[in-house]
Amino acid sequence: MTGHDSQKPAVPAALSVGRAVPRLEDPKLLRGQGQYLDDIALPGLLECAFLRSSAAHAKIDDLDVEEARAMPGVHAVLILADLMPKLTSGRMPLGASPTGGQSNSTPFVLSNSEVAYVGEPIAMVVADTRYLAEDAAARVKVAYTPLPVVTDARAGMSADAPTVRTELESNVLNSFNVGFGDVESAFANAAHVFSDDLWQHRGCGHSMEGRGVVAEVRPGDELCVWSSTQMPHDLYYMLQSMLGLDQDRLRVITPDVGGGFGPKYCLYPEEVAVPAAARLLGRNLKWVEDRRETFISSIQERDQYWTVEVAVDANARLLGIRGRLVHDQGAYAPKPVNLPYNSATAMSGPYMLPSYSMDVVIVHTNKVPVSSVRGAGYPQAAFAMERTMDLIAFKLGLDRAEVRRRNLIPPEKMPYTKKLKARSGAAMVYDSGDYLASQAEALEAAGWKDFPDRQARALAEGRYIGIGIANAVKGTGRGPFESGIVRVGQDGKVSVYTGATAMGQGIETALAQICADGLSLPVDDVRVIAGDTARTPLGLGGFASRQLVTAGSSVHLAAKSVAAKALAAASVILDVPQADLELKDGHVRVLASNRAISLAEIARTLRGAPGYAFPAGTEPGLESAMHWRSDSLAYANACHVAEVEVTPELGQVEIKRYVALNDSGRMINPMIVKGQVEGGIVHGIGNALYELMGYDDSAQPVTTSFQEYLLVTATELPFLETILRETPSPINPIGAKGVGEAGTIPAAAAIVSAVEHALAPFKVRISQTPITPEALFRLVESSKTN
Amino acid sequence: MTGHDSQKPAVPAALSVGRAVPRLEDPKLLRGQGQYLDDIALPGLLECAFLRSSAAHAKIDDLDVEEARAMPGVHAVLILADLMPKLTSGRMPLGASPTGGQSNSTPFVLSNSEVAYVGEPIAMVVADTRYLAEDAAARVKVAYTPLPVVTDARAGMSADAPTVRTELESNVLNSFNVGFGDVESAFANAAHVFSDDLWQHRGCGHSMEGRGVVAEVRPGDELCVWSSTQMPHDLYYMLQSMLGLDQDRLRVITPDVGGGFGPKYCLYPEEVAVPAAARLLGRNLKWVEDRRETFISSIQERDQYWTVEVAVDANARLLGIRGRLVHDQGAYAPKPVNLPYNSATAMSGPYMLPSYSMDVVIVHTNKVPVSSVRGAGYPQAAFAMERTMDLIAFKLGLDRAEVRRRNLIPPEKMPYTKKLKARSGAAMVYDSGDYLASQAEALEAAGWKDFPDRQARALAEGRYIGIGIANAVKGTGRGPFESGIVRVGQDGKVSVYTGATAMGQGIETALAQICADGLSLPVDDVRVIAGDTARTPLGLGGFASRQLVTAGSSVHLAAKSVAAKALAAASVILDVPQADLELKDGHVRVLASNRAISLAEIARTLRGAPGYAFPAGTEPGLESAMHWRSDSLAYANACHVAEVEVTPELGQVEIKRYVALNDSGRMINPMIVKGQVEGGIVHGIGNALYELMGYDDSAQPVTTSFQEYLLVTATELPFLETILRETPSPINPIGAKGVGEAGTIPAAAAIVSAVEHALAPFKVRISQTPITPEALFRLVESSKTN
Repeated sequence: MTGHDSQKPAVPAALSVGRAVPRLEDPKLLRGQGQYLDDIALPGLLECAFLRSSAAHAKIDDLDVEEARAMPGVHAVLILADLMPKLTSGRMPLGASPTGGQSNSTPFVLSNSEVAYVGEPIAMVVADTRYLAEDAAARVKVAYTPLPVVTDARAGMSADAPTVRTELESNVLNSFNVGFGDVESAFANAAHVFSDDLWQHRGCGHSMEGRGVVAEVRPGDELCVWSSTQMPHDLYYMLQSMLGLDQDRLRVITPDVGGGFGPKYCLYPEEVAVPAAARLLGRNLKWVEDRRETFISSIQERDQYWTVEVAVDANARLLGIRGRLVHDQGAYAPKPVNLPYNSATAMSGPYMLPSYSMDVVIVHTNKVPVSSVRGAGYPQAAFAMERTMDLIAFKLGLDRAEVRRRNLIPPEKMPYTKKLKARSGAAMVYDSGDYLASQAEALEAAGWKDFPDRQARALAEGRYIGIGIANAVKGTGRGPFESGIVRVGQDGKVSVYTGATAMGQGIETALAQICADGLSLPVDDVRVIAGDTARTPLGLGGFASRQLVTAGSSVHLAAKSVAAKALAAASVILDVPQADLELKDGHVRVLASNRAISLAEIARTLRGAPGYAFPAGTEPGLESAMHWRSDSLAYANACHVAEVEVTPELGQVEIKRYVALNDSGRMINPMIVKGQVEGGIVHGIGNALYELMGYDDSAQPVTTSFQEYLLVTATELPFLETILRETPSPINPIGAKGVGEAGTIPAAAAIVSAVEHALAPFKVRISQTPITPEALFRLVESSKTN
Repeated sequence: MTGHDSQKPAVPAALSVGRAVPRLEDPKLLRGQGQYLDDIALPGLLECAFLRSSAAHAKIDDLDVEEARAMPGVHAVLILADLMPKLTSGRMPLGASPTGGQSNSTPFVLSNSEVAYVGEPIAMVVADTRYLAEDAAARVKVAYTPLPVVTDARAGMSADAPTVRTELESNVLNSFNVGFGDVESAFANAAHVFSDDLWQHRGCGHSMEGRGVVAEVRPGDELCVWSSTQMPHDLYYMLQSMLGLDQDRLRVITPDVGGGFGPKYCLYPEEVAVPAAARLLGRNLKWVEDRRETFISSIQERDQYWTVEVAVDANARLLGIRGRLVHDQGAYAPKPVNLPYNSATAMSGPYMLPSYSMDVVIVHTNKVPVSSVRGAGYPQAAFAMERTMDLIAFKLGLDRAEVRRRNLIPPEKMPYTKKLKARSGAAMVYDSGDYLASQAEALEAAGWKDFPDRQARALAEGRYIGIGIANAVKGTGRGPFESGIVRVGQDGKVSVYTGATAMGQGIETALAQICADGLSLPVDDVRVIAGDTARTPLGLGGFASRQLVTAGSSVHLAAKSVAAKALAAASVILDVPQADLELKDGHVRVLASNRAISLAEIARTLRGAPGYAFPAGTEPGLESAMHWRSDSLAYANACHVAEVEVTPELGQVEIKRYVALNDSGRMINPMIVKGQVEGGIVHGIGNALYELMGYDDSAQPVTTSFQEYLLVTATELPFLETILRETPSPINPIGAKGVGEAGTIPAAAAIVSAVEHALAPFKVRISQTPITPEALFRLVESSKTN
């Protein structure tokens, strides 16, 4: 069982955490060897297409599928009634929510009697190829009777507005107040009160890979479902109950996922329809969303109307904020009220705010349903708050950074308890962070102090340059837990299993680093399997910048536990006290000796191969499953400073510099953190300047391709100057905070602040995004006439 | 989260352990709804056939596969070289063994240069159907040069014997002594010394379902393998290393298994060849053993030549036993020396034996490889010991039961330590049992005392009746552990996952009973998933009557742990002290109140659905994984008494009565225990009277169908009178002992004892099984001429 040290590597593995270890995902992904949903090859796989509503709101009088069914190569054309023998419900279940929801707010698996937005799935075609399926879907004859539509949430609130669906009594899904403190007194005693009306664009997440689902019928009445989702476990539990399956008869896997960004957080009708049809037909089925379908059926977000009033004292210190937030929910509410609740509770961000009262109204419209897109309500909140900060500075003639400085939570007040509840019901406690130092460092790097001189010189040359600032705080690492299972194989290679979802963001590398360090192994010896319900019975998935904190902590603890097991077993096997052993380079070594036993051999012993003696006092399996419990959030913070040049006569904005300070706690891999921050900034810049999901007055979408809906490309971007601070979180064992959303949240506000600043001579106020050339041109023109 | 008690069942679940709960498996299995290996339906599945050696020992000069390859519908004809790109070794690995083995004793995946027994796989054909595959296999041209064969192990031992394979220097695989005490003194001081030469037939397990394997290539370079095996985890680990697969890329499942009986304990070349070919061809493949293949390629057993000398004192008390055990190993040794080691260490059985010395010689022959068949060496040991007991009685003119009584370990000596090591290296400690009472009870039930009178009366009528007795002890519950995972689903149904293998023996029902009682649920609410490496990372499988003891103990502990978790969580959720709660009927109920929370709801809460508040002080997951550790065996005991009538002139034996007392500790389900005992007896009766795997002098098998190889059918059997004693084992938490093999072990010895007794007037001594009519006739005839 023991042996001399023939396998000792030449160079011992150094600790990898904190180093920019090259991403383990990249060799595969960058060489086209990733296995995305559409790459899942199964024998006899049939393809699906969905017939979607072309009406924004209509009654379906007739649905004639006969011609489509008769087409050669078409296996089935299914409406809801066809699927019902395999479903326990024809309607998607209501997601859990702290403030409730309504069972009639969720989408149907297929809608056969009424449709409430363009893109709503009506019928499903199964054919030999996608081409055939699309052709057949086009042959299904739908007779619509148009019904009145609601396109603007504010209009939809009105008691005499038509309802978005005939089953609704009102378009108002929910309304509630989020607040604390004595707002009335604050405003009564304020030195100044200012107000603003704000709106942010509606848009999607637009991953490189759209949604998609493969359902495979397996021996033993089992079902294996692959989905390009952020939430394999949610899908697993939902499908169990929607399909009436034993927990053992279902496996959900996320293959390589080409981006999540929020829209893949929801569960969709297609994710039920395809598995149900597979069970109905006894065939393996695939559906992959095309880009047009993304525009008309994947979750969209932002699209909130904020009315904000702020009360400040004579020194520009916040006394209170009040207002109303009208949230456009679209036609259905798959995750009822999480998002506007996030927005309302996130508004005060990094600032001290004594009183607050926000009336939230969630209103259905005949548009694509709304849930989370990167930031999940926080970007709107940051936009509202940072616009308000700029407004105060503007009104009081103060420096915008100075107004913020006076209101930022100082480090000595950490941990700082906001008088708000997080979604879990727990108190909202900011765990750590130095917001003042963060802002100061960002301003210094961006040349904030000298900017007025530069601006004056530019203006003298006829150039409109401006600098903008925005702060943000993001609660990350949402619990209650994520799974981290570490298992040493008989070959000494280590597998990490987690319910966290790998969406290209580098979580596999980060978890491998944490595990490798815990076991004193090279990172390459660790393989991370993320998002497979057969590997991790428990798991939550990817949302709320939670995965590194939660899964990382679990993997850290599990690796430590495996290391302890290895030492205990080696002590028995080698008959050496544990104090004389060390775990190094894949072996437990006897100090001051050349005796050692490999992890591989310990793993073989602890798996209990028949005939092997089993070391006394040890447990079977060189493995450990941990579910680190988290009841509070780790708050990341950021300060972004953008510099732009505006050409008013063209309405054109050029970003000259972008400095982003980000503090996401202890960094496992600074390269990945930087990538996440920068990707988030790009997303936010798109939100600020380019992206707009448009609907006409009849709620017909007018942007259903990238010709109309503009995504940022490299040519629109400056070199991003990213500064990474590191304030370890005290509330988790790895000190980490999430980083997936932090880059996006303040970006639009920083850009708008800079554009407004560049246009200072025109005294324009910007209250909406995106600032398209047309919008900017009109704004400047209207300022001239004022 | 809480609610009133609307779901309370009308009748509370009674404890099920100890009751003859109808088998959960039966509705499925008896209605033809079982899913056996051959029922695994996969799209695009191709079928395999093996070309097998027709020579017992030959060099293969040429192998021409071209004609077979050219046949329409044939996808591949593969020899070992074709498979090697997917294999790390062309030879099966050496199994773990306490006394070592030789790397050149294991079979090849395919043998292309030399064959060492009739049936050895040479090439593999993959075709659209099995028929085509068989036809193509017949077209492969093999040019053999015959080599000398060894058919008798005793002859094979000789230094000048030809070797069974040219790579061997000697046919003796291993030889060792098992013993203790001062044998020389014992024999020197003995009042009497007797000796005997014994042999038991060679035979197979002959399950209703033969072996078989399906290999499925899966997305992600994964492989799913179904095998009708007793050892899914062994297969999993072996395939990982033989195919060079990551632990995550392989899943091994045992579907419904139509009997194991030992031959499915070994891993076979076909279980490597089919998966390797599937990976090579990228196709899903199936191979199912046909009955002829069972006879020429599945493990066989018994076939040991024992020479026994016994020393007794004047009172017929044992002083010592010595002898030699020549074990026919067949052509290869897949599990090197476990079986003869078992035999040698098991011989003294329930008796006190002061000294012992058995020389074990393991010898290769050109016959099918040998490993375990039900009893795994114990039946030969019991046969040797019980024949010796009868010999002592015969020689000293004593009652056979009385000789045994004087030598049985009395209950007051329990726990009793034999001076031998179990295979794990642990001391052999009999944990409990009352062998004297067991024998007395069996004798009483069988009418032993009055039998001489009956026999005398019968003889007077010209009828030869006899009664025979045999005792046995079987070490059961071999560790080091078995997995038991209990998981409550969101629907309140409970899944039990275990590495134990369900082979039709009722383990699913027994584990469900244990789990149901632990959680106060009806048995029907529990589903047992046995033998799936994706469900249970750790597991050992089915052998050595181990599964109920080991998996049962783990499931018991896991269910208790889940119950404790449910109570802890309910206490937080309901805000009621645990002392005021009880778990009953699928709910945690508040005593003296109608408040309750269902296990389903606790499971949903503990899985951490997003947005749910998570109960303080509890762990995620209403589940528990236990691996109850076992370092010693639980010894079951039996006393069988058989009554026969012999017709000497026909050589015919009719079993008139069969009384079997069995003590397998605490019974989870007496109906299943009875079934196992009776099935075992039938197996043993077959061994005694009918089964014989025959080879001619050129090592050609002469029994390759059930026309030549006789299995017992109902017409040969009497009503079996089974008495179930219950001496709980003190060494496991459920008090159980294994029962899968106990019925077989003494049965042949009891039958032979009875036949010999019936033929007492002829003074014949029976030293071999099966006692075929021809053998019996000759025995009687030869006694007349003596």
